Amino acid sequence: MNQTIMQVVPVTFTYPVHFTEHLFEPQQALLRDTLAGPGPSGDHAPRVLCVVDDGVLAAFPELAAQIQTYFAAQPGLRLVAPPLGVPGGERCKSDPDVVGRIHEAINAHGIDRHAYVIAVGGGAVLDMVGYAAATAHRGVRLVRVPTTVLSQNDSAVGVKNSVNAFGKKNWLGTFAPPHAVLNDRAFLTTLEDRDWLGGLSEALKVALLKDTAFFDWLEANAAALAARDREAMDHAVYRCAELHLQHISGSGDPFERGSSRPLDFGHWAAHKLESLSGYRLRHGEAVAVGIALDCTYAALNGLLPEAAWRRILNVLRTLGLAVYVPELGTGTQDASDPRSVLSGLNEFREHLGGRLTIPLLTGIGQPVEVHEMDHDLLRRAITVLEDLQAQASSPSVLHLHSQGVL
Amino acid sequence: MNQTIMQVVPVTFTYPVHFTEHLFEPQQALLRDTLAGPGPSGDHAPRVLCVVDDGVLAAFPELAAQIQTYFAAQPGLRLVAPPLGVPGGERCKSDPDVVGRIHEAINAHGIDRHAYVIAVGGGAVLDMVGYAAATAHRGVRLVRVPTTVLSQNDSAVGVKNSVNAFGKKNWLGTFAPPHAVLNDRAFLTTLEDRDWLGGLSEALKVALLKDTAFFDWLEANAAALAARDREAMDHAVYRCAELHLQHISGSGDPFERGSSRPLDFGHWAAHKLESLSGYRLRHGEAVAVGIALDCTYAALNGLLPEAAWRRILNVLRTLGLAVYVPELGTGTQDASDPRSVLSGLNEFREHLGGRLTIPLLTGIGQPVEVHEMDHDLLRRAITVLEDLQAQASSPSVLHLHSQGVL
Ligand SMILES: NC(=O)c1ccc[n+]([C@@H]2O[C@H](COP(=O)([O-])OP(=O)(O)OC[C@H]3O[C@@H](n4cnc5c(N)ncnc54)[C@H](O)[C@@H]3O)[C@@H](O)[C@H]2O)c1
Ligand SMILES: NC(=O)c1ccc[n+]([C@@H]2O[C@H](COP(=O)([O-])OP(=O)(O)OC[C@H]3O[C@@H](n4cnc5c(N)ncnc54)[C@H](O)[C@@H]3O)[C@@H](O)[C@H]2O)c1
Ligand SMILES: [Zn+2]
Ligand SMILES: [Zn+2]
Repeated sequence: MNQTIMQVVPVTFTYPVHFTEHLFEPQQALLRDTLAGPGPSGDHAPRVLCVVDDGVLAAFPELAAQIQTYFAAQPGLRLVAPPLGVPGGERCKSDPDVVGRIHEAINAHGIDRHAYVIAVGGGAVLDMVGYAAATAHRGVRLVRVPTTVLSQNDSAVGVKNSVNAFGKKNWLGTFAPPHAVLNDRAFLTTLEDRDWLGGLSEALKVALLKDTAFFDWLEANAAALAARDREAMDHAVYRCAELHLQHISGSGDPFERGSSRPLDFGHWAAHKLESLSGYRLRHGEAVAVGIALDCTYAALNGLLPEAAWRRILNVLRTLGLAVYVPELGTGTQDASDPRSVLSGLNEFREHLGGRLTIPLLTGIGQPVEVHEMDHDLLRRAITVLEDLQAQASSPSVLHLHSQGVL
Repeated sequence: MNQTIMQVVPVTFTYPVHFTEHLFEPQQALLRDTLAGPGPSGDHAPRVLCVVDDGVLAAFPELAAQIQTYFAAQPGLRLVAPPLGVPGGERCKSDPDVVGRIHEAINAHGIDRHAYVIAVGGGAVLDMVGYAAATAHRGVRLVRVPTTVLSQNDSAVGVKNSVNAFGKKNWLGTFAPPHAVLNDRAFLTTLEDRDWLGGLSEALKVALLKDTAFFDWLEANAAALAARDREAMDHAVYRCAELHLQHISGSGDPFERGSSRPLDFGHWAAHKLESLSGYRLRHGEAVAVGIALDCTYAALNGLLPEAAWRRILNVLRTLGLAVYVPELGTGTQDASDPRSVLSGLNEFREHLGGRLTIPLLTGIGQPVEVHEMDHDLLRRAITVLEDLQAQASSPSVLHLHSQGVL
């Protein structure tokens, strides 16, 4: 006798994303309040393990002591050890020993499903600590304290974590919403220019996909952002994070079970360029090039009006973000050559599974999905970008036609 | 300026649990239909990697060939390699190399988020393959084909996976609902008696917590089940699976974020006994002892009427399940001694986090939660069980009083 039970498991994840400053200063209640509730923690003071990006420790030499002072003043919380430093940047995602060390600390200090791991750092450290926390005891509570533009406005507000394996980016990972995200803008002041600027390509991306008013604002404020105006950055981070959060909660597919990843505009090339550069390129820098490439492609094939293309490329250039990198020109420029950026199309399909689905633009704020890209046209787009990058020309003279390709 | 965005991420997981027979026979459409849909798989035939418990391969020597024949007849599916054998039982969860081998196979054969891993085996193999599948590419599709009573009626129908680490059971794991569960009753015929019977303690557990009619049925059919009546087993597996599924979908806490785990009746001792025995005891066998212990404790402290206690112990004994094992008597019988079963109380609290929460019974089908257990009374309960197990007495003469303790 055959029988079937259709199982339906509804789960709702809820977490706050706070925007604040000076999180670890003694009088700040936010961190303490975040760790106290919600949930019945019984008669034990919750344990807290803190893991910090060593780039952040170098930029803020007083931070480790400050964290210990903060917790010493909280009788309701138990910092189980001095903050644990880990290598910042992509290194920490590529070395499996680092995840092992986080697991060991979680085990040694008795961090359980009602205890907390606080991760302070860039997107790479948060991805790696997030993976370790999500797999220990089927998930201990993770509080993310992102310290770069990219992590504050994109990677740390979402539901994903990962590390690299088999030489492949993000091969291991899970979907695991955090307990809370605490965006402390003071951390951004010490970023290198490339990290200050690189993260803005995600803001441009999400504006192009979802919010023409935000694009207009970015266009008007690009020069201020490039000059490290803090107020402009505050707004850019907040609005970008908000748009990402709205997408995740409202998309109907937060755990990406379908083939389409509408937020991954410009990302098929970005992922490939990061890997081709041996991670010399940061994610945000690679996304800037990826956006430039897909916009130029769309303009060349007539999907995107030239005027819109010009505005987008101008914003990238005003932000000081490169639109061409040598990795665009490596290999045989053939999709079957793994050294060529074109092979990124198929790798992107493989990572998502199912059918190749690429978001492109028909206008600012007007995405469409396509299921193939013409390789000749992509090669022409690359040539346009190479010429553009070489020119010292002021942005206003950008013309696709004058690039001699149309 | 401080701002907060409250993020809400609703996710609904849906999967079928099928009860069938002879899944891999050529004319069976169920497996093919399960892998074809749902979701747009585009123009590529989905890839399938099959991992099989070596205990199952030994019991069904023709199985590997049968699986290959089945897939050879399906043009819409691509079996990427001959079925991959893995060690059956707890060994596969304790050796990190086994997870590594599954990851390698997933990578080598290009299994992506729209491709399938089919895991065929006991609860241990399904937990281990489930963990590997859930962490590869943030989760590839897992089809579970459980081959033991325990996995068909409990472990494989749920949302958890795990492997052991730091010498601790299930230390690593995630919550990851499967794509589908295919319960093939033909696999049960080759189980050793201990695996046929052991899994029934989960049926008894869930009946005691949720369904007096199912308890009555188990009581009436205990002798038939012990005699390996297949029809009785069919019903026991179906109803037990159904009750577990209903609990998970209706509990409001499928990912166990609270402190209470109502289905873990008898499990604080069970987990500890498994570990004390070096996994000589199977999970189901340990649960039988755990149920006996917690029921006897509840009877001794007056929570559970003696008549109900007698019926429960009789069912366990009629099923031929031991109610006492030497591991109950090891160590100093002190909760601070890790060799004593009593230390399992605190380990249980630690694994869940938060406050100690133990389900006990006030009657059949009537659970309550308690937050502490009296150690003296637990030691007395252990003595009662030791006496009982030693007696060859017929079940009908069971009396708490005649055990000289009340
Ligand atoms: N999980 C997701 O959804 C998601 C999304 C996008 C990107 N990512 C990942 O994020 C990573 C990139 O993150 P990133 O751009 O933040 O770079 P990063 O984490 O690689 O950090 C870049 C450098 O900045 C340093 N740093 C961090 N904070 C600093 C500070 N306040 N002051 C000075 N130096 C500081 C780091 O030590 C590092 O050397 C990539 O691994 C990418 O895959 C994840
Ligand atoms: N994920 C969960 O929610 C959950 C719940 C309960 C238990 N578990 C886990 O399940 C595991 C126990 O599973 P189990 O009781 O199925 O035992 P098991 O997986 O350890 O298998 C027991 C033995 O039976 C063999 N075997 C399996 N199928 C067979 C068949 N059809 N014929 C002959 N031999 C066969 C195996 O090779 C093994 O040697 C434990 O690791 C436990 O932690 C998980
Ligand atoms: Zn990105
Ligand atoms: Zn169990």
